[in-house]
Amino acid sequence: MEQSPAIELLKQALRRLPGVGPKSAQRMVLYLLERDREGARQIVQALDNALEKVGHCSRCNNLSEQKVCEICESPRRDHSMLCVVESPADLISLEQSAVYNGTYFVLMGHLSPLDGIGPEELGIPHLEAVMDKSNLKEVILATNLTVEGEATAHFISVLASRRGIRVTRIAYGVPVGGELEYVDGGTLARAFTGRQET
Amino acid sequence: MEQSPAIELLKQALRRLPGVGPKSAQRMVLYLLERDREGARQIVQALDNALEKVGHCSRCNNLSEQKVCEICESPRRDHSMLCVVESPADLISLEQSAVYNGTYFVLMGHLSPLDGIGPEELGIPHLEAVMDKSNLKEVILATNLTVEGEATAHFISVLASRRGIRVTRIAYGVPVGGELEYVDGGTLARAFTGRQET
Repeated sequence: MEQSPAIELLKQALRRLPGVGPKSAQRMVLYLLERDREGARQIVQALDNALEKVGHCSRCNNLSEQKVCEICESPRRDHSMLCVVESPADLISLEQSAVYNGTYFVLMGHLSPLDGIGPEELGIPHLEAVMDKSNLKEVILATNLTVEGEATAHFISVLASRRGIRVTRIAYGVPVGGELEYVDGGTLARAFTGRQET
Repeated sequence: MEQSPAIELLKQALRRLPGVGPKSAQRMVLYLLERDREGARQIVQALDNALEKVGHCSRCNNLSEQKVCEICESPRRDHSMLCVVESPADLISLEQSAVYNGTYFVLMGHLSPLDGIGPEELGIPHLEAVMDKSNLKEVILATNLTVEGEATAHFISVLASRRGIRVTRIAYGVPVGGELEYVDGGTLARAFTGRQET
């Protein structure tokens, strides 16, 4: 199949996007070149702009255009609470649910010694500095409920306890609206061990 | 939710890609900015490059970097056969199946009067010029089996017949490996009306 090298290169480049395989990359390329060159130009500009402007907040490590992000700077947030999450996407989910009004620390991953990801790579020394400098009352661990997420949470909980800061872990159990019949065993086990007096 | 304007703009831009909704746009943005800035730069370059270089073949109207595409220029193709398809993606599918060795004409859509897409918009005057200039023996209509695709095929078949060129339509019926039980009624009807002597 003879195809234009420019099209082939673009297809390869788009495949670096998460969730995009060869078929959808081709569909995107043909769509952009046939019907939405204006859209393609917008993507170029927006990507360029984001690459140039978006860095990390120097306090919470979240993606941010400013040196210190809006959440960390806001006087309306409770700066005595620090919620530790694995990624900016987790932070966004929590913000959208609007259940939490404290500050965050974004790890950008979880401990994974086999992949060479240790405390340094996650910025945990920086988190320790934050714990030392800020007047924290509570650290809430909101890492994922995976083996690595749990290990990461445990690691951080030791560091916080050592400083006399209260450490909590968000609750895991049957999701709201979830029918027991369709809930997996691990979640059910969590729901039982985490049961509370009514 | 306070979010960086650069991130917001990029999310909006990526939503112009086909099959990308708000959730996957967000996933792409965070992935690119957190983990694959190099990939993001590649996408920018590849898009820029494709936008600059890829135009249409002056003969078959397919996407091409040259004025005349490789298929139209190839001496190994049968230039007495012209297969009319709706889009470059259809052409790619046919090329990949390697069942056809003639040339193509790419309409970039189908007749759709309600959307203001008439013969002019599809480049049908240009197709007529190709029919007049080239020494065609056969025009194969490979538009989609939709109302619009059928109407487009009929429209072109009249133009070709008028010039004394043989016109054929690719066969529609039960797909290879398709089980009758799961084939839809329209396809079954086609398979029956299109039945042939064995």
